[in-house]
Amino acid sequence: MLYIVGIGPGSRDIMTQEAIRAIKQSEVIVGYKTYLKVIEDMLQGKETVSNGMRGEVERCQKAIKIAKKGKTVAMISSGDAGIYGMAGLILELVDKEDAEIEIKVIPGVTASIAAAAKLGAPLMNDFCHISLSDHMTPWKVIKSRIDAAAKADFVICLYNPRSSERPELLKEAMDIITKYKSDETVVGIGKDVARVNETEKVTTIKELNYEEINMTTIVLVGNKHTYIANDRMITPRGYEI
Amino acid sequence: MLYIVGIGPGSRDIMTQEAIRAIKQSEVIVGYKTYLKVIEDMLQGKETVSNGMRGEVERCQKAIKIAKKGKTVAMISSGDAGIYGMAGLILELVDKEDAEIEIKVIPGVTASIAAAAKLGAPLMNDFCHISLSDHMTPWKVIKSRIDAAAKADFVICLYNPRSSERPELLKEAMDIITKYKSDETVVGIGKDVARVNETEKVTTIKELNYEEINMTTIVLVGNKHTYIANDRMITPRGYEI
Repeated sequence: MLYIVGIGPGSRDIMTQEAIRAIKQSEVIVGYKTYLKVIEDMLQGKETVSNGMRGEVERCQKAIKIAKKGKTVAMISSGDAGIYGMAGLILELVDKEDAEIEIKVIPGVTASIAAAAKLGAPLMNDFCHISLSDHMTPWKVIKSRIDAAAKADFVICLYNPRSSERPELLKEAMDIITKYKSDETVVGIGKDVARVNETEKVTTIKELNYEEINMTTIVLVGNKHTYIANDRMITPRGYEI
Repeated sequence: MLYIVGIGPGSRDIMTQEAIRAIKQSEVIVGYKTYLKVIEDMLQGKETVSNGMRGEVERCQKAIKIAKKGKTVAMISSGDAGIYGMAGLILELVDKEDAEIEIKVIPGVTASIAAAAKLGAPLMNDFCHISLSDHMTPWKVIKSRIDAAAKADFVICLYNPRSSERPELLKEAMDIITKYKSDETVVGIGKDVARVNETEKVTTIKELNYEEINMTTIVLVGNKHTYIANDRMITPRGYEI
């Protein structure tokens, strides 16, 4: 049995019942070392398999190999395993190898939803998720999605917004967005949400401090109706009040 | 204290720790009657306030009024309270009334994420959420968003896909989508996900049976790389395997 478990962005508080149960029931826990640290207290008596960033394919192959031996394995993803996480890669590899193992994907709270709750209610109308990581999706494709999302006035959730290798991409993204949205558009920033040093900030595109943003930050760009009240970011659903 | 609680789509399994705690700690539970039924066993000894569909503004006003009296109140939303839920309306009303109450939004697993986990891994690349309910957003705006999302090849999650009043909107949406996406594009359907009679189905736009879809269904339309393997819907993240 191979569970693919989304553990949420960090805090045990926003982990689901099912995720906790799957980890408890598993003999072997596989995951990126940073995420295993988050659930350290749940790992006693269990075998753990971890590696570093960019080792995703090898990590998933190991998890499948162990599950094929008949062990109960939990593959850990941060947030939700199906959103830029490990669920897709596991299923792709299982298909390719024609591996006969039982698989269950266990959903979790993804970072944008956790950040949104802390920031107010920015996702109350139609929204997009776009990852600015151009390792696996060409920057040209990502740019075309940012353009389309801004033009149709979606609320935009940017994942992996600013890497040390490509810090300029976020500014490029904002330059595309401001072709259509005002630079007074509300922006919410959630950094290390549900972790020890979490910070949230509500600002505007114009006032954005790019230096504050890194890869553990979620950037939420509002639509034209999004406003700030009591330091919270609110996108109206459209009720008449 | 007013907690705005996302209870997930149904099953207690995918409720978060924090949501359960907030409900336990609350003296008064407010919510749409269908959602209160889901947590019926948690309501013993508590005051409940509920009403029917379309009574959202009144329901939120009541919750605020009770919280202002100093009671601990939980306002219940299905899925995540910040995604087409009650978080935005509560914050809008609190701002308008200038109500001095403490508010905490507690995130939950939204229906698309729960459906995606059951269907495979459809949301592994950039995606949009669009509600087809035109009560509060003009159909023209919704159509422009569907057009933009399809053109830029987002995976598209359709909420409220087919009402009895406006059953034709889903077909209209698919007609826009097939201007850009092939009618062989994979579609995942999650109906009553995490509830008693849940069903999932992986199909294509061409093979879609509109009659099967209602307001408690989530429709996930893949991107051009989405494929079916072992009856699961997989959108590749882009790893070379």
